[in-house]
Amino acid sequence: MPIQTHSTVQEIRKAGMELADSALERLLPSTDTQPVSIHRAMRHSVFAGGKRLRPLLCMEAARMIAGAEGSLPAGVEDLGAAIEMLHTYSLIHDDLPALDNDDLRRGKPTCHVVYGEAIAILAGDALQTLAFETLSELACPAPQTVSIVREIAVAVGTGVGPIGQPGMIGGQVMDIEGEHQKPTAQLVETIHRAKTGALITVSIVAGGIFAGATPDAIERLRIFGQKAGLAFQIVDDVLDMTQDSAQLGKTAGKDTASDKATWPAVFGLEQSQQDAERLIKEAFAQLAPFGPAADPLKSLANYLVQRKN
Amino acid sequence: MPIQTHSTVQEIRKAGMELADSALERLLPSTDTQPVSIHRAMRHSVFAGGKRLRPLLCMEAARMIAGAEGSLPAGVEDLGAAIEMLHTYSLIHDDLPALDNDDLRRGKPTCHVVYGEAIAILAGDALQTLAFETLSELACPAPQTVSIVREIAVAVGTGVGPIGQPGMIGGQVMDIEGEHQKPTAQLVETIHRAKTGALITVSIVAGGIFAGATPDAIERLRIFGQKAGLAFQIVDDVLDMTQDSAQLGKTAGKDTASDKATWPAVFGLEQSQQDAERLIKEAFAQLAPFGPAADPLKSLANYLVQRKN
Repeated sequence: MPIQTHSTVQEIRKAGMELADSALERLLPSTDTQPVSIHRAMRHSVFAGGKRLRPLLCMEAARMIAGAEGSLPAGVEDLGAAIEMLHTYSLIHDDLPALDNDDLRRGKPTCHVVYGEAIAILAGDALQTLAFETLSELACPAPQTVSIVREIAVAVGTGVGPIGQPGMIGGQVMDIEGEHQKPTAQLVETIHRAKTGALITVSIVAGGIFAGATPDAIERLRIFGQKAGLAFQIVDDVLDMTQDSAQLGKTAGKDTASDKATWPAVFGLEQSQQDAERLIKEAFAQLAPFGPAADPLKSLANYLVQRKN
Repeated sequence: MPIQTHSTVQEIRKAGMELADSALERLLPSTDTQPVSIHRAMRHSVFAGGKRLRPLLCMEAARMIAGAEGSLPAGVEDLGAAIEMLHTYSLIHDDLPALDNDDLRRGKPTCHVVYGEAIAILAGDALQTLAFETLSELACPAPQTVSIVREIAVAVGTGVGPIGQPGMIGGQVMDIEGEHQKPTAQLVETIHRAKTGALITVSIVAGGIFAGATPDAIERLRIFGQKAGLAFQIVDDVLDMTQDSAQLGKTAGKDTASDKATWPAVFGLEQSQQDAERLIKEAFAQLAPFGPAADPLKSLANYLVQRKN
């Protein structure tokens, strides 16, 4: 019997989002903890309607590795929450006037619009810090925790990690510096792999490490994450170009307007869609040895590349 | 025979600074690693003439705990370097136009003046990340590494740590929000303990953990660090009020001009000096059980509160 054939992807998402949200609720300082302004700013952005894609991928990777019973390893939601904190910190800083200067995200005013630039900068800083604090308290053996801290720090940094590409901040720098230049195929792939791919990949890898994955399984999860993460970003680019703002919940066409390096800008819409489908197939091939235990993770990844917003 | 009576504090400082600098040189990405702008910005601020107080305190605490032979535990300089990265990240963000808006630090143009606000924000972010990456690769057993990551994350965060005070970012928020209000004794002590005290304290505590300190020794180091850290900040406030800019290498009287919550503003100059001396004596009392092995750490702390810039 395949595991969890009774769970639709909507059930997986709903249960995972609730679990991730309750972990974030517990881990973030309350809005009446001093100094209150920064804690309010942190919660404003963390609870602004994020889809929790990274915690979901992290938890489903952990479920697959944990194996036969199909249940989540206890405490993995804190790992997912830490990764969501890192994602949120990067969005807060990315939205600042000195960077992308975005007033709206997910239909709500961005952190600096509500709390001012100083508090927004510090709230981003504090979310990065709280992520590492959360990692240091994970319910797994210390060597696995150290390995997760290292993997995540490399993924969100500037330097070249195990996938031979810069991490998230490196991607942000290249994205800023690449604006208003004609994007090349190599540049757009490098930026995508770094700016969004690295954190998505490490969400999956870290979930596996938490659940005790073997080195071989970790490398399979890494390749799965790279390919699925790139497919996910290509779909994001395509949606930015083809959907309107109401459907997206953010300003559509913004990438095109600012000459951002996007996949359709370089390869066209049709090839972009083909590339996303090919990458997802290649990603799934990495999960073959896990058999039906991989079904929830595959359903989730499928959903992510077929979504419409 | 007391250990290292042949080492003057100047010799301890010189050797420690060289060791910390060589670790930072090795750990920071080179200025020709892509994307180069952020790596140049990170190095600009890390190598802008810092006194390396925190790495020095960290390494001397580790030397004291390591015991009889008076040599540093191998690899502790990487821990010191990680702490210096965190200190530098906090300075880069503190100097931003949205925060303290400082153009000069240690007589050199600040990061955002040279590289622009966007890169300065991301360079600070990346230094925090690199600090945690460096911690994940420390040459000590995994349980000690996890404990160091937790202690440091709490110390640089917003929340309430083991000393019952907010961490470094919490202190920055209170400092910003306390400007142009009449500072009270309680506020100035809370801000000092958080904004500078927490990172100084954890430098000493983490050095001890790295060297295998017992829980009792760790708590002694913590109290030593709290008291010495507060004394150090009081001396900083006094120097800001009594020295001119050329002696300090930064704009003197800036704290007074902006009504920052400083110790002399609340307690006066004379009591400030007495408080610093009393705190250092109380700090030293915590080190009594370590005997002469504590001499280098005590010499260093003495130097820090007697310095003139």
